[in-house]
Amino acid sequence: MELNHILDARSVAVVGASRNPTKRGYQAIKILLDEHYDGRIYPVNPKESRILGLKCYAKVSDIPEPVDLALITTPAKTIPAILADCGRKGVKGAVVIAGGFREVGEEGRRLEEDMVAEARRQHIRLIGPNTSGMMNLKSNLNLVGMHDVPRGEVALLSQSGNMALTLITEARLKSKLGFTYYVGVGNEADIRFHEYLAFLRRDPDTKAVLMYVEGMKDGRSFLAEARRTTQEKPVVLLKSGRSDTGRRSAGSHTGALAGGWEVARTAFGQAGVVLLTHSDELIPVVEALACQPPLEANRLAILADGGGHATIAADLLSDLGVEIPELSPRTQERLREILPFTASVRNPVDVAGGTDADPSLFADCARIILEDPGVSGLLMVGLFGGYGIRFAESLAVGEEEAAHRLGRLSRELGKPVIVHSLFAPLRPHALELLRHYRIPVYESLDIACRAVAELAHYGRYRRQEQRPLELELRPRDKAKPEGQRILEAARREGRGFLLEHEARQLLRLHGLPVPPERLAADPEEAVAAWRELGGGRVVLKVVSPQILHKSDAGGVKLGLADAEAVRRAWQEIADSARAFDPGAELRGVLVTPQVEAEGVEVIVGAKHDEQFGPVIMFGLGGIMVEVMRDVVFRLVPLDRPQAAEMVRAIRGYPLLAGARGRTPLDTAALERLLVVCSEVMEAYPEIAEMDLNPVLVQEEGVAVLDARVILGG
Amino acid sequence: MELNHILDARSVAVVGASRNPTKRGYQAIKILLDEHYDGRIYPVNPKESRILGLKCYAKVSDIPEPVDLALITTPAKTIPAILADCGRKGVKGAVVIAGGFREVGEEGRRLEEDMVAEARRQHIRLIGPNTSGMMNLKSNLNLVGMHDVPRGEVALLSQSGNMALTLITEARLKSKLGFTYYVGVGNEADIRFHEYLAFLRRDPDTKAVLMYVEGMKDGRSFLAEARRTTQEKPVVLLKSGRSDTGRRSAGSHTGALAGGWEVARTAFGQAGVVLLTHSDELIPVVEALACQPPLEANRLAILADGGGHATIAADLLSDLGVEIPELSPRTQERLREILPFTASVRNPVDVAGGTDADPSLFADCARIILEDPGVSGLLMVGLFGGYGIRFAESLAVGEEEAAHRLGRLSRELGKPVIVHSLFAPLRPHALELLRHYRIPVYESLDIACRAVAELAHYGRYRRQEQRPLELELRPRDKAKPEGQRILEAARREGRGFLLEHEARQLLRLHGLPVPPERLAADPEEAVAAWRELGGGRVVLKVVSPQILHKSDAGGVKLGLADAEAVRRAWQEIADSARAFDPGAELRGVLVTPQVEAEGVEVIVGAKHDEQFGPVIMFGLGGIMVEVMRDVVFRLVPLDRPQAAEMVRAIRGYPLLAGARGRTPLDTAALERLLVVCSEVMEAYPEIAEMDLNPVLVQEEGVAVLDARVILGG
Repeated sequence: MELNHILDARSVAVVGASRNPTKRGYQAIKILLDEHYDGRIYPVNPKESRILGLKCYAKVSDIPEPVDLALITTPAKTIPAILADCGRKGVKGAVVIAGGFREVGEEGRRLEEDMVAEARRQHIRLIGPNTSGMMNLKSNLNLVGMHDVPRGEVALLSQSGNMALTLITEARLKSKLGFTYYVGVGNEADIRFHEYLAFLRRDPDTKAVLMYVEGMKDGRSFLAEARRTTQEKPVVLLKSGRSDTGRRSAGSHTGALAGGWEVARTAFGQAGVVLLTHSDELIPVVEALACQPPLEANRLAILADGGGHATIAADLLSDLGVEIPELSPRTQERLREILPFTASVRNPVDVAGGTDADPSLFADCARIILEDPGVSGLLMVGLFGGYGIRFAESLAVGEEEAAHRLGRLSRELGKPVIVHSLFAPLRPHALELLRHYRIPVYESLDIACRAVAELAHYGRYRRQEQRPLELELRPRDKAKPEGQRILEAARREGRGFLLEHEARQLLRLHGLPVPPERLAADPEEAVAAWRELGGGRVVLKVVSPQILHKSDAGGVKLGLADAEAVRRAWQEIADSARAFDPGAELRGVLVTPQVEAEGVEVIVGAKHDEQFGPVIMFGLGGIMVEVMRDVVFRLVPLDRPQAAEMVRAIRGYPLLAGARGRTPLDTAALERLLVVCSEVMEAYPEIAEMDLNPVLVQEEGVAVLDARVILGG
Repeated sequence: MELNHILDARSVAVVGASRNPTKRGYQAIKILLDEHYDGRIYPVNPKESRILGLKCYAKVSDIPEPVDLALITTPAKTIPAILADCGRKGVKGAVVIAGGFREVGEEGRRLEEDMVAEARRQHIRLIGPNTSGMMNLKSNLNLVGMHDVPRGEVALLSQSGNMALTLITEARLKSKLGFTYYVGVGNEADIRFHEYLAFLRRDPDTKAVLMYVEGMKDGRSFLAEARRTTQEKPVVLLKSGRSDTGRRSAGSHTGALAGGWEVARTAFGQAGVVLLTHSDELIPVVEALACQPPLEANRLAILADGGGHATIAADLLSDLGVEIPELSPRTQERLREILPFTASVRNPVDVAGGTDADPSLFADCARIILEDPGVSGLLMVGLFGGYGIRFAESLAVGEEEAAHRLGRLSRELGKPVIVHSLFAPLRPHALELLRHYRIPVYESLDIACRAVAELAHYGRYRRQEQRPLELELRPRDKAKPEGQRILEAARREGRGFLLEHEARQLLRLHGLPVPPERLAADPEEAVAAWRELGGGRVVLKVVSPQILHKSDAGGVKLGLADAEAVRRAWQEIADSARAFDPGAELRGVLVTPQVEAEGVEVIVGAKHDEQFGPVIMFGLGGIMVEVMRDVVFRLVPLDRPQAAEMVRAIRGYPLLAGARGRTPLDTAALERLLVVCSEVMEAYPEIAEMDLNPVLVQEEGVAVLDARVILGG
């Protein structure tokens, strides 16, 4: 794995080394020395001979020993030449601190491209640019200039130096958590998120990965790698730039693509990534996931020494989808035996003063609760740890005993224990002991609830069978050449979209039951088509390369049931089209049978997301999508089980399933339609957007009433 | 105001005083002495002569001087006798610490009622029972046993002693906030929330009120008082027991009613109460509201020294409905002049290293931004306060200068400034200076955003004209006697609901345009009714005191257009009703014209909420309410402007307003209907529930297609 040579570099050249203590090129060397970097340091500066006691070289290629990594602290424009020199030396990687690249506009973008091209030529991989640096806490390779970073079990990838500083500071002040690596990912000019993640997945010391992301250059590769990683260790991620204003700010920061929050949320969720939106939650959640096992089932118990905290916790956990089941009668009975009559033993358990005289009773309660087979984990909330402070110092002994017993209990039973304590900021010894047993202790009740909820959610994700995608044997691959011909025909005419009969033909090629149609060049052909289609009611629609929105051009006539009506409709459509756009070329008028069966209108769409590639959209039609925004997204490729899950994910699903005494509709056919859409999007990357709207889901089958296919630029 | 004598008591008797330091009756006296209570203390215990140097009395009535307040620390059963004795002495109030009342069940409830009855006889007002006590920080009347409570500007009302301890501890550790009063409201057996609130509204030292509520006994009085209070000072409230599990826990805690979260949220919102769901947010939000003016307009600027924090803040504020407008060109230009070219000046403003050499530049930026007339407040996020810690000690001077200037600037311009700093936990001097100027400083970015959002929301509420309700001159008051007769007729028959024609009659009395109807006792009467109604299509519905759900009993026939069909339908309905319930008494069959016009179905309902009394519900019909839960609630009485706002508050409103090229419907008629429902609910408190479902909103008018009125037990 080539990133080894970079993230675990055994030697580093500091290009732009300086004797001026205010310069990054001085500070970088100073911190490597201070922190006892477990490798060789080579200052590089043609004007100096020694810096901080180390021999200084004029250029990297002058260094006699092998150099794994170059830390480049000089400005943007100097970098290609430095990389060329590094290449001569066989340097494996470079950390480029400088900003002024893609994030500042067109000129910067060109500079960045030149730099990357040079790096490729020299077989050098780049971290950054526009980064605060990189740290390996195992070898004390600290290229960031942040002191006192605790060593531990979490790897951090961040696109903001300030956020990295924030998270590291918080970990130091409020947890026992520490770090294996930190990478300031910067502009992702060369090494991408998924490559760092693949490295961290293989690193045995990294128990969890924490990420702050503004935008990703290769979302699909990241998701593929994340899916693998989350099977082995949790990945916790905050993605900013969700709002328009946020994007405005993110855009000016790293220049990365940000957007499509709904798609991103779905995509990360599908890959098992723990996605957070509040930065306060990052460290606490990664702490819980790194230190405790996930919940085996979504069944949590709450143990409190006062009603207020218990009630608030129950509210929050309920909001977060965590179940707080009643304890078994046997468990309740056992608790009753040791608690006062005013205690509540159903769950939440409120000891109601029962622990006032002897806080070691908390451990007794915890054991009884966790031995209940219906309980998968315990959240303890309230004053634990503060009895010795608030009531009587002698009580601290009981608390410490309880802490030892709680720690051993959690390990013995393999069930997670999370503790909230009002007294956490005062760091009483009992709470430090809990942390020693890797039981996270939080001062915030809200955050303790979030952390335990994520243990439940991650547990659920891990329990899902990670089945391979059930993609069919692509019987439609043989459809592809003909489909390609349809697209090429449109291209040749310089059209950015398919005409409706072409779109229908394309879907039909891929096995969709689209009602038949005939293209009628004149009124008599229309009448003949009407007869061919059985002589029932038909719909006529204009076909013109200049008319994308047919209704606006008066180009749609419904419910035509006799020859005269069909004839007249053809003529009216032709007249309307001419009136709408005298330059419009009339290819003909489409004649299709009118769909008479009842059903529910849905919309099925697809588009290319900037970060994650093709995605399929599904929702109920009309106001449900436009007003209620009741839509779901899934990434392509989509298989049948996923499609089934997708159909059930909209809030309006009861309408399809047969709510209020209605007949259930053919959701199986709808699922097939979603899978075919996925197949089409995969087969033809040139399709930018596809809109099947409306689609009528009927008791038997689905009918695609209109299809629009937009081609990419 | 009688609570003066209690909350500002000049003398206190401690009943159950003790010489045993582990007893509450000892600790209570000890803390009053330690904290130098500014009044007289009288220990009461027949077995002691002196406690902690104070003369001890056998009973309260033995005390020679006047006694305002009794703190009663003895068990539940002893209390009535003690109150009787207090009454003899002329004591004004008592704090009852003991639990074991209503919250433990039926026996406790009786005990509580007896105690309250005795208090009433003795003209003694009660705080509690089941309370941690009460504190007046101005006179050091500390009846709680909590040390080191900071004195300040916030009053705290709480139904959980642990939550009070949590909030006070947090205020002490993380803010400069302090308290005027704390009341442990307990079971609200006598003094209710609204009485405390009225007292606090009049207290000039209290700048804001903070509340933790599990359930309220008199929600309507509280709302009325809250509406007054929030015009003068902010009220911040967390209501727990929202979830079923939460209620299970709240129920066992104070035994208070909890429930109807949706109604509670609406009710508190209408009264201008700042309602929070996360306990972490309480102290920070009340701090912002107590220390800074609300935003004059919903236009906030963000000033950051790094993109990450700025982007996250913009995302969160956008979620919270706060606008982050672009700054004016002039402002951007002025910022450009003092910031590096890599800075972002649109909003969020990112100084991009511009403050590294001199953090006093923050104050320059803040002035330029706040002088922009399009900006109503400033949120500063990032590392401010930490430059002297993280970079160079010398920078602390510049930070302190900036703090002074920021503090004066905020006062000068009257625009709120809120600061987030990663370094807040280290309490650098610059941040302490900001707090001195009453600028809140938060270590959490998430919470800083919430606090500033509440300044925006509260500002918006305060800007709303507090118009008196525009209730019409009650022309329908004359309808009431006849309406009463309809309800009484149902009562006399022991019916718990009105028959449909009675419900229609009642609504018609109050001016609703309900289509006419005839009650037909036999098929021929039905035919006659059909003729009388004009001979168009009619609907027939069964009328029976035993049949509430008419469709289930086969009791509804639609679309009847000739005499024979009407005749047959009457008979079929009669047969079905008999088959459904052989004991059902058939009062006849209702004949009404079938409403043919098109429109959108809505549901209008009303019910008595346990805490807040009658409320009106409105939503779109069918799946929109059942699946999408797109409904809104408002308290009775409702006036036209409120009704108009209510109609617009559902997400599906575009459907009524004429979305997607539809004709706009008669929302004015719908508003009138809502107002009439409010009037009916107000006029007849015996109506427990009312369900007009469906109501067809048409291009002109609304048609109530079915009406159900349920009477209360």
